[in-house]
Amino acid sequence: MNIGIIGSGNMGSGLGKIWARRGHQVIFSFSRDMNKLNELARSVPNSRAASPAEAVEQSEVVLLAVRWANVEEAIKAGGSFKEKVLIDCTNPLNPDLSDLAIGHTTSAAEEIARLAKEAKVVKAFNTVFAEVYHSSSRRFGTRMTSMFYCGDDVEAKATVEKLIKEVGFEPIDAGPLKVARYLEPLGMFMVQLGYVRGMGTNIALSLIRR
Amino acid sequence: MNIGIIGSGNMGSGLGKIWARRGHQVIFSFSRDMNKLNELARSVPNSRAASPAEAVEQSEVVLLAVRWANVEEAIKAGGSFKEKVLIDCTNPLNPDLSDLAIGHTTSAAEEIARLAKEAKVVKAFNTVFAEVYHSSSRRFGTRMTSMFYCGDDVEAKATVEKLIKEVGFEPIDAGPLKVARYLEPLGMFMVQLGYVRGMGTNIALSLIRR
Repeated sequence: MNIGIIGSGNMGSGLGKIWARRGHQVIFSFSRDMNKLNELARSVPNSRAASPAEAVEQSEVVLLAVRWANVEEAIKAGGSFKEKVLIDCTNPLNPDLSDLAIGHTTSAAEEIARLAKEAKVVKAFNTVFAEVYHSSSRRFGTRMTSMFYCGDDVEAKATVEKLIKEVGFEPIDAGPLKVARYLEPLGMFMVQLGYVRGMGTNIALSLIRR
Repeated sequence: MNIGIIGSGNMGSGLGKIWARRGHQVIFSFSRDMNKLNELARSVPNSRAASPAEAVEQSEVVLLAVRWANVEEAIKAGGSFKEKVLIDCTNPLNPDLSDLAIGHTTSAAEEIARLAKEAKVVKAFNTVFAEVYHSSSRRFGTRMTSMFYCGDDVEAKATVEKLIKEVGFEPIDAGPLKVARYLEPLGMFMVQLGYVRGMGTNIALSLIRR
């Protein structure tokens, strides 16, 4: 396959290298520094450097791997995407990585903290199906579910961490309460997989490390 | 510990049972059907049924496990939450479970589909750090990263599925492109764990099943 890469930074170069190694023809494009782009293409067999318009024109699949701030410019530079498979691996983060730049403004947890005055709100247990709690074990074979939780009160979080362990999960402190803005879509995502995609309720997430 | 449960449905009863079995005193509350609530309490040692106000008043920890539509009513019924640890396990879903009811309005992927006219946009590769692509292997010991992807074009998704396998991940079709509204917060969540929480970039998610 011919695979065009728009945005040849850390992400685009990493994926491009792998696909080139698998025998695809990779075209790297969209760099502030043409020397770097050429150097990258020289170092990766089955690859070359080109303009975004050439990369799109000559590929069936295009990977968009630019910062959110550059998305519009990059797409314009790509020209026509008619019939192209466009893989979007962007995350629309603020420039300082502090939050999502679009589409996300609040969370149930934050609203609940406003309603339940003086409560020490901790978000937890929203990413696993109730059926898992009702079954005889929380184990998935030898594997353990990671339970992400977040909140603004240190002591309250310590209490909840203990309760998570008692349920049989690995507790993972995800930070302050506003991280519920990511944990609630994650809960919704599990609903999407379990019910809409038909995977059922015996699914869970495990954070793996190395 | 005394643990009050507001909302004694599937979620609240499941967690309440586990904690009661661990030796905590559990108070179930907030049910449309007092008979069911009493029956639940009778069937679970170390538990009793009460009003939400009593459940809150007599507990150090309160689990809020009601539907999003009932949150405000449930919190009012709970009275004062002063100094209480309030565990929020709600997901603010629409009544038909079709989407998040608050806080989420669009996604980068959907914006990109609008900008790149006629492209077959597929969201993928946004939940793993670039460093993982640059390293010598995608394996985490014996464990495999699950790569969630979504899009509206069946053929484009088949192509991306193949590319995901070639990278060394387990592809999981998460549905239509608007599911990017959950996948992008998940990308942001990984940034939160990796950078803000200091877990580093050698982390990934594995969907476990049983």
